[in-house]
Amino acid sequence: MAVGVGVIGAGTVGGGVIHTLLHNAAVIREKSGIDVRLAHVAELNQDLLKDYELGGVTVSNDANALFADPAVDIVCELIGGLEPARTFILNALDAGKHVVTANKMLLAIHGPELNEAAARNGKQLCYEAAVGGAIPIIKPLRESLAANNITAIYGILNGTCNYILTRMAREELEFETVLAQAIDKGFAETPPDLDIEGHDTAHKCQILASLAYSTEVKLEDVYVEGVTKVTGLDVAYAREMGYEIKLLASIRKTDGEIEARVHPTLIPQDHQLAAIAYEFNGVYVESDIADATLYYGRGAGRLPTASAVVGDVIDIAVTMDGPAPPPFRYTHPLKVREIGLLQSRYYLRLTTQDHPGVLGKICTILGNHGVSIASCFQKEEEDDVPAHIVITTHETTESNVMTALRDIDALEFITEPTHVLRVLQES
Amino acid sequence: MAVGVGVIGAGTVGGGVIHTLLHNAAVIREKSGIDVRLAHVAELNQDLLKDYELGGVTVSNDANALFADPAVDIVCELIGGLEPARTFILNALDAGKHVVTANKMLLAIHGPELNEAAARNGKQLCYEAAVGGAIPIIKPLRESLAANNITAIYGILNGTCNYILTRMAREELEFETVLAQAIDKGFAETPPDLDIEGHDTAHKCQILASLAYSTEVKLEDVYVEGVTKVTGLDVAYAREMGYEIKLLASIRKTDGEIEARVHPTLIPQDHQLAAIAYEFNGVYVESDIADATLYYGRGAGRLPTASAVVGDVIDIAVTMDGPAPPPFRYTHPLKVREIGLLQSRYYLRLTTQDHPGVLGKICTILGNHGVSIASCFQKEEEDDVPAHIVITTHETTESNVMTALRDIDALEFITEPTHVLRVLQES
Repeated sequence: MAVGVGVIGAGTVGGGVIHTLLHNAAVIREKSGIDVRLAHVAELNQDLLKDYELGGVTVSNDANALFADPAVDIVCELIGGLEPARTFILNALDAGKHVVTANKMLLAIHGPELNEAAARNGKQLCYEAAVGGAIPIIKPLRESLAANNITAIYGILNGTCNYILTRMAREELEFETVLAQAIDKGFAETPPDLDIEGHDTAHKCQILASLAYSTEVKLEDVYVEGVTKVTGLDVAYAREMGYEIKLLASIRKTDGEIEARVHPTLIPQDHQLAAIAYEFNGVYVESDIADATLYYGRGAGRLPTASAVVGDVIDIAVTMDGPAPPPFRYTHPLKVREIGLLQSRYYLRLTTQDHPGVLGKICTILGNHGVSIASCFQKEEEDDVPAHIVITTHETTESNVMTALRDIDALEFITEPTHVLRVLQES
Repeated sequence: MAVGVGVIGAGTVGGGVIHTLLHNAAVIREKSGIDVRLAHVAELNQDLLKDYELGGVTVSNDANALFADPAVDIVCELIGGLEPARTFILNALDAGKHVVTANKMLLAIHGPELNEAAARNGKQLCYEAAVGGAIPIIKPLRESLAANNITAIYGILNGTCNYILTRMAREELEFETVLAQAIDKGFAETPPDLDIEGHDTAHKCQILASLAYSTEVKLEDVYVEGVTKVTGLDVAYAREMGYEIKLLASIRKTDGEIEARVHPTLIPQDHQLAAIAYEFNGVYVESDIADATLYYGRGAGRLPTASAVVGDVIDIAVTMDGPAPPPFRYTHPLKVREIGLLQSRYYLRLTTQDHPGVLGKICTILGNHGVSIASCFQKEEEDDVPAHIVITTHETTESNVMTALRDIDALEFITEPTHVLRVLQES
């Protein structure tokens, strides 16, 4: 049996998919029992194709020609961005093709429309590559863990941020230094805002939250805070207390609402997620039957992302002659909880002039707002440098902390706005 | 659509499966679109069933009655052991049922016969739970990574061994002490031999090696060394040098042969596998397109194992009306490499009387056998206690090391057989 694949876009990921289909045809045939053939490549910049042996493959610069090609059963949308990617996917589904995409931004914004179009056409829409690159996480959530109620998901989902935070921690560097080097070496995108401001992680958070709870999470309801305000000092203090700081997507169900948030998070050093270093990604899933499971690997890159795309292609190829697998449905209308209602432990770094009674006043204000202190230390500093007081709190609400800090930051001896980070607390 | 499940054996895992099917029917229906119903339980000891609400479920003490039950589409074999489990699975397949099993020993010994019976009957045989408990690893290897040539697999696959080694390392305890406590608390099986002698890990190693390379690995060709000879001293010395000792299943393809071996292994502390602690399991997979991926979770236990069993049941339920997925085939006759040919780095702990010239003689013998030293330290000891010399080697062959040690251990000042451990070396 032979199945034809059409690839739209031969950039980084598209090129990786073309490479994989051409070079690993034998292993794919062996594992799937199917001849998965690259049938058609649509790419505007034909220069990108010159390194591939495309004998027998139709090459065009027209996605619509690809959708009309009867040799194509499965379309891989790998151009990224919102348009024309959205229209291409809708057209492909309407043309009776199955679709595989790695386009997390598109899914995070237009997921319901795209899933609906797939269900309407009785075709599959797969997107393993959109979250965690090579890491199998969509399939485990939809299939391996299908007997489970998901309790929580914690994900390190952006390689650029994790690379920067890892080097800040291990080499005692500042954020800007590592970012500049990462851009220099081509590790980070230019401009890097989508990564470092947390939006890329928020897209993936939206996808996982929707999937885990079969609900339509609006991207704008995902709380997002990037890593640009994390300082070398915070990283060092956190380590001193036994934590690593990671940009974490946190998804939990709490009292019939769901949490979907992205922010730098203190993770205990003995937690599996703390060991995920440099550009690697990891997703930690808590569920009622399996308990904790973790999935780790490369979250980006030409071939790792292609591994997930072609894995989806093979999945479709194996099942496409049978009844359609259950389409993804947004069954449960669940509210995304406001960040002010978050129950968490907190890390506070206060910058103060070194006066007697400072700590007492701070503690009193925290106490008055129901924020109870778990640990506290004050670093001795030289005479003319403001002192840092680092506090971790017991579990409290975000709004308690924020109102307390409004009062604290108004005190005359507080010389800088207090740095606030949240601490991972497993259910 | 409704699919009927028959469960043979309501012990630990069987009970977990019954619990999951009864309690999580709603989430299963939501994720799969299918009503997965517990239809029939066959169990000799009906006492085991008294805690479950089995209204509407046929209960028998006869597996053959279960196979003959038209309400059963999928049979879960959860009694363990070789017989009658083997006969039950063959009978179930011949009766036209799909089969899910968690029985690693049976698969490691009779895998070809069972897979052949499944293929002959056009039915599925699934066994996600047989390796790594709750961890999705069989499905990632067969499906998510289907576009990849697998380069290597390294697995911590036995919770009892990992629990013992973790406590030895973190609490500086001896093997026997932790084992006794583990047996006391019911963490370890009695007798614990299958676990601590490495055979349970070897079963899983056989399953993963066969799967990764589509080849029939004979269980007796898997090299097995358990953890009983690992001492607190070795664990402490390894840590001093930046390693953790883990019982590791190692699977690699080397020059057209495959390695399939189980032995205590020194793992660099910054490797993901080193962070897998206590009863948790983890599998690290290297492949040509995805690069490294890792899968982590509970390798045993009532509900975690049930999560994998029911995950397989749901997979079958979703696909059973379509064309049968490709049966597993032992396509490639690959030779399992003899352990003597292994290329590895080694850890050697020599016990000697403290004479001048000792280290020189040892180094000369190693050098004469082509074993080159990477690091070496000698601990100062009190006068009447033999000294320990700890050596790590550069990559060499197992047979070089073993012949060198035959000469070294024959030296008059060597007072104990030298302890040898292998060091993980990633490709």
